[in-house]
Amino acid sequence: MARIDLDALTLEQKASLLSGRDFWTTKAVEEAGIPSIVLTDGPHGIRRQAGETDHLGINDSEPATCFPPAAAVGSSWDPDVAARLGAALGREARALGVAVVLGPGVNIKRSPLCGRNFEYYSEDPLLSGVLATAHVRALQAEGPGASVKHFAANNQETERMRISADVDERTLREIYLPAFERVVTQARPATVMCSYNRVNGVYASEHHWLLTEVLRDEWGFTGAVVSDWGAVNDRVAALAAGLDLEMPGSGGATDRQIVDAVREGRLDGALVDRSARRVAELTERAAPADGFDADAHHALARELAAECPVLLRNERNTLPLDRFSTIAVIGEFAAAPRYQGGGSSHINPTRVDTALDALRALAESRGRTVHYERGFTTDGSGGAADLRRSAVDAAAAAEVAVVFAGLGEAQESEGFDRETIELPAEQVELIRAVAAAAPRTVVVLSNGGVVSLEGWHDEVDAVLECWLLGQAGGPAVADLLFGVANPSGRLAESIPLRLRDTPAHLNFPGEQGHVRYGEGVMVGYRYYETVERPVRYPFGHGLSYTTFATRDLEVTVTGDDTAVAEVTVANTGRRAGKHVVQVYVATAAGPVRRPARELRAFAKVALEPGESRTVEMPLDRRAFAYYDIELGRWVVAPGEYRIQVGQDASHVAAEATVTLTGDAVAQVLSLDSTVGEWFSHPVVGLAFLESLTAGMGEEQARQAEQSEDLLTMVASMPLRQFLSFTGVDIPAERLEQLMELSGSPRSE
Amino acid sequence: MARIDLDALTLEQKASLLSGRDFWTTKAVEEAGIPSIVLTDGPHGIRRQAGETDHLGINDSEPATCFPPAAAVGSSWDPDVAARLGAALGREARALGVAVVLGPGVNIKRSPLCGRNFEYYSEDPLLSGVLATAHVRALQAEGPGASVKHFAANNQETERMRISADVDERTLREIYLPAFERVVTQARPATVMCSYNRVNGVYASEHHWLLTEVLRDEWGFTGAVVSDWGAVNDRVAALAAGLDLEMPGSGGATDRQIVDAVREGRLDGALVDRSARRVAELTERAAPADGFDADAHHALARELAAECPVLLRNERNTLPLDRFSTIAVIGEFAAAPRYQGGGSSHINPTRVDTALDALRALAESRGRTVHYERGFTTDGSGGAADLRRSAVDAAAAAEVAVVFAGLGEAQESEGFDRETIELPAEQVELIRAVAAAAPRTVVVLSNGGVVSLEGWHDEVDAVLECWLLGQAGGPAVADLLFGVANPSGRLAESIPLRLRDTPAHLNFPGEQGHVRYGEGVMVGYRYYETVERPVRYPFGHGLSYTTFATRDLEVTVTGDDTAVAEVTVANTGRRAGKHVVQVYVATAAGPVRRPARELRAFAKVALEPGESRTVEMPLDRRAFAYYDIELGRWVVAPGEYRIQVGQDASHVAAEATVTLTGDAVAQVLSLDSTVGEWFSHPVVGLAFLESLTAGMGEEQARQAEQSEDLLTMVASMPLRQFLSFTGVDIPAERLEQLMELSGSPRSE
Repeated sequence: MARIDLDALTLEQKASLLSGRDFWTTKAVEEAGIPSIVLTDGPHGIRRQAGETDHLGINDSEPATCFPPAAAVGSSWDPDVAARLGAALGREARALGVAVVLGPGVNIKRSPLCGRNFEYYSEDPLLSGVLATAHVRALQAEGPGASVKHFAANNQETERMRISADVDERTLREIYLPAFERVVTQARPATVMCSYNRVNGVYASEHHWLLTEVLRDEWGFTGAVVSDWGAVNDRVAALAAGLDLEMPGSGGATDRQIVDAVREGRLDGALVDRSARRVAELTERAAPADGFDADAHHALARELAAECPVLLRNERNTLPLDRFSTIAVIGEFAAAPRYQGGGSSHINPTRVDTALDALRALAESRGRTVHYERGFTTDGSGGAADLRRSAVDAAAAAEVAVVFAGLGEAQESEGFDRETIELPAEQVELIRAVAAAAPRTVVVLSNGGVVSLEGWHDEVDAVLECWLLGQAGGPAVADLLFGVANPSGRLAESIPLRLRDTPAHLNFPGEQGHVRYGEGVMVGYRYYETVERPVRYPFGHGLSYTTFATRDLEVTVTGDDTAVAEVTVANTGRRAGKHVVQVYVATAAGPVRRPARELRAFAKVALEPGESRTVEMPLDRRAFAYYDIELGRWVVAPGEYRIQVGQDASHVAAEATVTLTGDAVAQVLSLDSTVGEWFSHPVVGLAFLESLTAGMGEEQARQAEQSEDLLTMVASMPLRQFLSFTGVDIPAERLEQLMELSGSPRSE
Repeated sequence: MARIDLDALTLEQKASLLSGRDFWTTKAVEEAGIPSIVLTDGPHGIRRQAGETDHLGINDSEPATCFPPAAAVGSSWDPDVAARLGAALGREARALGVAVVLGPGVNIKRSPLCGRNFEYYSEDPLLSGVLATAHVRALQAEGPGASVKHFAANNQETERMRISADVDERTLREIYLPAFERVVTQARPATVMCSYNRVNGVYASEHHWLLTEVLRDEWGFTGAVVSDWGAVNDRVAALAAGLDLEMPGSGGATDRQIVDAVREGRLDGALVDRSARRVAELTERAAPADGFDADAHHALARELAAECPVLLRNERNTLPLDRFSTIAVIGEFAAAPRYQGGGSSHINPTRVDTALDALRALAESRGRTVHYERGFTTDGSGGAADLRRSAVDAAAAAEVAVVFAGLGEAQESEGFDRETIELPAEQVELIRAVAAAAPRTVVVLSNGGVVSLEGWHDEVDAVLECWLLGQAGGPAVADLLFGVANPSGRLAESIPLRLRDTPAHLNFPGEQGHVRYGEGVMVGYRYYETVERPVRYPFGHGLSYTTFATRDLEVTVTGDDTAVAEVTVANTGRRAGKHVVQVYVATAAGPVRRPARELRAFAKVALEPGESRTVEMPLDRRAFAYYDIELGRWVVAPGEYRIQVGQDASHVAAEATVTLTGDAVAQVLSLDSTVGEWFSHPVVGLAFLESLTAGMGEEQARQAEQSEDLLTMVASMPLRQFLSFTGVDIPAERLEQLMELSGSPRSE
């Protein structure tokens, strides 16, 4: 495609490119050959609205495949799952004439209450970033562009359009930005979507540091920044900050504001040119609509869905079900699946298969009996006690009961946060009653956000956490329950014992316009492991129908700040299965508080029974680095690093320690540096001590010698105060000389 | 004394008043009759240094009475104790020619690790404020001035001279400022001492908001602000911010900076006049030195000390000791007491009495035997195993063993923070060995900061937490142990189970120049109670040799935002004793997260056996208020308030609920207000709904009616975005009319 020529356009024409024509399309500029393009949701399926007045998606959109939402994909720990999903989305987008697909969402799950957690991958930035990168690469390889969102620190729905996420820079850099950074630098998404909220008081849509300094200057982003729908507060300020495309349209009102601002000298016209060019380049993503194979995509959705559920518990090897001859299937979700979340990502699916039908088919083919009872209703209709009684009778009559529980659509959605992580009370009651009656009980959970297992967990034999699995999740779950497939999901977020144990609990969702990120980098497992707070199931947990062994961990240091871990994993059981190798790094090196351990590499490995494989896991500089706010960059502190292969975030299966040279950071000393920092400085410490002693009076020197405690007292005193406090006389020239010397590299 | 005339002074002379002549004195201006005055430490005793070169107090100061430090006074819960201590300090200051006494310290105990916690009262601002107010009033009534310190948010020693306490305004207003506010408004201290640290990036010494807007404009402070010794960073900026007197002197260097700044027009000369006048007025505190009665003050120190220890545990009524005929007294602290903290508050006591001598005397008078064993040494000398063996032998041979354990001077001090709350390992070992050998074991603790009781608590029968008790603490403890006095202290800070359970744990003491107050207002018991985290002993806990009952709580609402609680307490045991009535308020009213309960009134009541008294506890506006950062003021939210009389912060003995009218705060609506706020507005909600419906198209109205979820989705949308999002058309004039109306008071 020829390079678009914008030079001939008027200011008005260029400004017209900077906001939507309507809710889902941009404006064309015919003279310049710039077409209108369609941008539409979403992260796990294409929501192409038919009408243009139906802004809030009240009517059905065009049918499209509903793939597993990100909460499920996160639990797959498999970039291949994300990639195949992304590629399918790219094909459907093209088929439906969509140039930019609004997704994936890579926000970190800060609190289990966030209403949109079902659209996000994980509480861990590496896992989120790797999956999203695979998704975006594959989607864009099909033609359409992606829109990685919501940039940034958009970790709640409450007051989402104006809340200020008050968060320090290290926390942003280490927790909330890395997933965006990885996608931008490795997958070059066509667009980044700025979020509704404020970050440290400034609207994300007007945040120059975020949208320009970090995103473009540091990460090299060259695409267009698009607003979340309605996220623009002041159009001119947003443009100056780096927001290119406002969506939806404003009927031209904000285009005129831009034109006026340029005319009145309040806005640099070059900024309009620059953003217009970015939007124009985006329109190159437009492609002629072709078709997509709905049956093939449904089959793909089923295949991907089977990779996601997490087998949390399986006492007495209750699962798989294939050896039981009578099975009671209980719960509305078995017949009317909860498979996607509410809000902008809501898909009009091409079809929906249920677990009940699939279970019946599997049972029948094996000569087993399935008896179904609804057990409860999500809308409260039907008489809970009657439904429960019939369910309990069925459970008592069967060899095993499988309860499909979870959250209804009314309990979680984009637009609001939950206030509890409990299952609805009638479901808890049902589970307990069934468990008391049935010889064995399995609970299958469908929920976008984490639910508590307390109050019933110990009474059931097995729990399969399925999250939301998309339109073909039903048969995928049936395959897992019957052992046709082997569960391989691992938790992408911790399951706490109590809501009040969660690290953001007291600060979430904030108040009076502000939410304090008081827990800093201690999000999710980083918190639980560091304060040794027990959880029900840790991040990374997940069982299989086979067993795995981890052995022969070897870590080789490959540079000042890099290493490679090699570890052998073996399938020690009798079924084929997939194991997730989780490599964590633990260290106390550096001047900042490090979490007990952090996930730094992972790989999902398929193993036949008896098979073993040696996996090589490179650990790059960032696997060891912290973000130093004083130096304004990532630093690898010299010191010891423990490389831990974790069964999950709580259980270390193998560990090796390496010592890294790290960065030769000699602190540049000043009068604000403490006496302790001066004393311990590798370059000028000794010289300083000499100058100090020379500068003391006789009496002072005698006193100093006598008092060891004194050193402890003055160690934290900045040199400026120390000198004025004690009257010790070090010539100014000598001090300047030492300060200059302090910045030079170590002589080694 | 005649009003000082400053008009005749030169700029240089006036500037000369604004910094010290040397370490402890101000400069005189003879022509104006302004004398030099002495300012000196400290909070629980007068540290009058003899020489002028001995800046760090390496040599002994003039002998003075060492009264119980604030950690102990805090546990007395008795303003009368604080007042009698303050008055005695005032007398000794006068006797030693001191015009301003540097204390009391009212910083909040944010973390148990803070090295200076022994100088602070409590984790609760009300308790701290009430005690400090009594202290300052009584001290100043004797003539000298007080210096309430360290203003503000100086809650750690690590990097204390440059760390930035990053803390939000509500937390400052509700937790870290109220003790200062109470002292300033109720006791009018002569000076306030600004702290070393930064607050939200700005040095306290240069913090205009703190030193001028809050302290003077809001609280009406009329005294002088003095720097902590060496806290001045930029003298001119500090003066402009409201710092009057820099201590110690700078040899005139900073006076010249002030003069230059005025001459060069960088500083308003009126500011120099104002601060000079404040310092000059301070010199009116100078008084001719007289004597003080050291014996009487020692006796007073003993009397006050007996009010402070907290009887944490007393199984099998092991205490008092008077019924045992053979007593093994073990531990170095019995013979060489730890009675004060290290650093600037360190006193050269007039004498020191030991618990061992007092116990021997009491035992002898009763025909009992005391056998003493050192058990351990704080300096590690003497062979721990041998000492322990002898101690265990003695314990086995006695009817009861009393172990004097605690922290040595090297383990806690001003100048550094602890890294652990554990007792030294050899003491834990000793306690366990003694407990295993002795028929009964009592542990007496001497420590400035909280120590963990884990690892030995369950193995001993009784624990008496004495904190640091000053020079006459020994006989006071002996009296309590023998039942000559009855313990009446209550914990002024929570004793956690584990350091990692403490609310500031992950954020303390900060890193790279910043300490995040991530726990917000959830400090101490506010945190433990709100997240239901168990502690070893809660705030407010303390046993007695008698028993008390709480009954007949009645709460009367006395206004829109005030109430009075009346409650009857009775001594139901057989000894005279003192009970502390603790009134907490619990509420969910208002738009901010409230702690589970907060101490809002307390009274210490002495009761003879069988006696009962009805106590009236007024609850003023502030007992119910939160600080509203949007309105910039204290607000009493309309709603329900539970008034709880607590046995301690964890155990409610009686509760009554009142409903308060509160403040009629009708939110002033704007385009930034959410649709939900518009709908629910008490004045214009309905009118808005009508305008909204009128502004909808027919199709929109139909859709809106069909979708209830829609309301949830849009409730959190600011009106600006909602209108642009939906295209709903409400005339601009109508909106302005509604916004104006919204601010008017409710019609009732």
